[in-house]
Amino acid sequence: MHSEFSLLAPDRALAAALQQKIDRKTKPLGALGLLEGLGLRIGLVQQSLTPALRNPHVIVFAGDHGAARAGVSAYPQDVTWQMVENFLAGGAGINVFARQNGLGLTVVDAGVAHDFGPRPGLVDAKMGPGTKNYLEEPAMTRAECATAMQRGAGIIRTLAADGCNIVGFGEMGIGNTAAASLITHCLTGTPLADCIGRGTGLDDAGVARKHQLLEKALARTGRVDDPLSVLAEFGGFEIAMMAGAMLAAARAGMVLLIDGFIVGSAALTAARLAPAITEYCIFCHRSAEPGHVAQLTALGAQPLIDLGLRLGEGTGTALAYPLVQAAVNFVNEMASFESAGVSDKE
Amino acid sequence: MHSEFSLLAPDRALAAALQQKIDRKTKPLGALGLLEGLGLRIGLVQQSLTPALRNPHVIVFAGDHGAARAGVSAYPQDVTWQMVENFLAGGAGINVFARQNGLGLTVVDAGVAHDFGPRPGLVDAKMGPGTKNYLEEPAMTRAECATAMQRGAGIIRTLAADGCNIVGFGEMGIGNTAAASLITHCLTGTPLADCIGRGTGLDDAGVARKHQLLEKALARTGRVDDPLSVLAEFGGFEIAMMAGAMLAAARAGMVLLIDGFIVGSAALTAARLAPAITEYCIFCHRSAEPGHVAQLTALGAQPLIDLGLRLGEGTGTALAYPLVQAAVNFVNEMASFESAGVSDKE
Repeated sequence: MHSEFSLLAPDRALAAALQQKIDRKTKPLGALGLLEGLGLRIGLVQQSLTPALRNPHVIVFAGDHGAARAGVSAYPQDVTWQMVENFLAGGAGINVFARQNGLGLTVVDAGVAHDFGPRPGLVDAKMGPGTKNYLEEPAMTRAECATAMQRGAGIIRTLAADGCNIVGFGEMGIGNTAAASLITHCLTGTPLADCIGRGTGLDDAGVARKHQLLEKALARTGRVDDPLSVLAEFGGFEIAMMAGAMLAAARAGMVLLIDGFIVGSAALTAARLAPAITEYCIFCHRSAEPGHVAQLTALGAQPLIDLGLRLGEGTGTALAYPLVQAAVNFVNEMASFESAGVSDKE
Repeated sequence: MHSEFSLLAPDRALAAALQQKIDRKTKPLGALGLLEGLGLRIGLVQQSLTPALRNPHVIVFAGDHGAARAGVSAYPQDVTWQMVENFLAGGAGINVFARQNGLGLTVVDAGVAHDFGPRPGLVDAKMGPGTKNYLEEPAMTRAECATAMQRGAGIIRTLAADGCNIVGFGEMGIGNTAAASLITHCLTGTPLADCIGRGTGLDDAGVARKHQLLEKALARTGRVDDPLSVLAEFGGFEIAMMAGAMLAAARAGMVLLIDGFIVGSAALTAARLAPAITEYCIFCHRSAEPGHVAQLTALGAQPLIDLGLRLGEGTGTALAYPLVQAAVNFVNEMASFESAGVSDKE
């Protein structure tokens, strides 16, 4: 149905040799827990017994949502562009954590309702000054959705040409947890109530109001479950651009670092178009947003960290990155029982 | 009862100012989850609104256990000294992760049944060639236990003099999960069966045999719950030395990074002597050893990562360290709503 998104899973021919290498390291069998599966997975993505992470990078996709003005968020819409300025000035959470852990950072204007002008560090991929209000009409046309996805793929091509082989996805967009809730509901069939959370900090009345508004949006469209239709109806430009970027990154053989609930909604959409993409993905953390559980279950994903984060911006990817690096390093650097002269289990 | 171990909790006078600083960062309130509490805790330990981690270091305490020869482990006792050689050669898991994350590493011979001779990178604090077999007699005398604890404190004094203010604890010792099981049972009252696991990889029959042996050890002593008595009856020299080192590190105002089940048994013992020590501790990960749950519950601890690790060596502390650094960095480096010109919640 969406054959243009076809994607092969990594060849598993190397799996036995990788597992053997992992099992001969000087540690009890399986003693590095999830890091062992991670080392294996990265080896397969890279088709190498000595995987290596090169030029790790986080891309933060920013976009505004027409529905934000209807009151689905605790913050005013201006916060989207103000936070983009904060990213460019180096003061946001993602700046701190990317800097600490040695990841490059690119900020993308996917469709913010603000004119930034040309700015160093900001990629202009603007689709428009925010999406339309999905309470009244589709957030974007199918053609806009396709263009946003293509622009995402183009950003990945530039990164790959710079030698990057591992990319983290982050986002900023007031109102985008609401969009992610709708996408998660439509693509997983999870009841809407279980896909809705406090976002940036709604109180109980705010959550109830968000629920009411999102029911109204669903009543407008009726049942939709085709991934591209869902994306066009409810998505943000930043979510569509991420989905396109993710598909391109997997096709380029990169390792994908998936952040929390909103990035997860893009990953879920991409996985509905090309299921093999999950083999390229590392789900970095378990978000405090309740709908994240539905995504992780649908994708069969086990996240690396669970710190109650709900900041977005790709912060979960930058924070989890040292664990990903550790998975690669133990495969390459740990001694084996043989090389270290250590006795094996009796 | 053990007033020589008295320890004050950090003064909380700065708590309100630290919380205010955290809450004005450009993020929704609480959006950095556990990292926020961690930043606050480190600020209090250091009595500073701008905490800083200096010369982070992991110490691996190695020791042999008389009971190991009775068959409580899946590996031969020689693995203890062979792994010490592996640490000195740089090939073990802890070497890889400490190197990656910029932590110094010191290996301590607390009582390995092997003559290493003088070696660079190895601190000779040997209490003897392993403990006695607790199936037949106390593992060590009360005097030996006190000496081991003092030697641990001395190692910390040296580190502190070198400017280190955050220290990770690791261990190596074939048979030491069995010792940790006994300590956890005695100090928490958790049924012995719930304190016993596969250690380095026992099968079901091996676990049953370990259970039987540990019941025999408990039958010899009868009920013991005084922490120093428990340590002397069942402890390893490495566990006693860690407990002494932990108490000294907290007294010196350091941040303590606690690894998994065996290091946890030392932390539990230290906390029974000086309950305030938990305020200085960061519990780095949730071990796959079932008895770790009893320790964490008894200490009211919430570990940072949960990756199914069961390697020991302090690997959990080195792997979690970047998250600890992140907690300090966001406090110091993130912009505030005011400084970044970002609108707050409506």
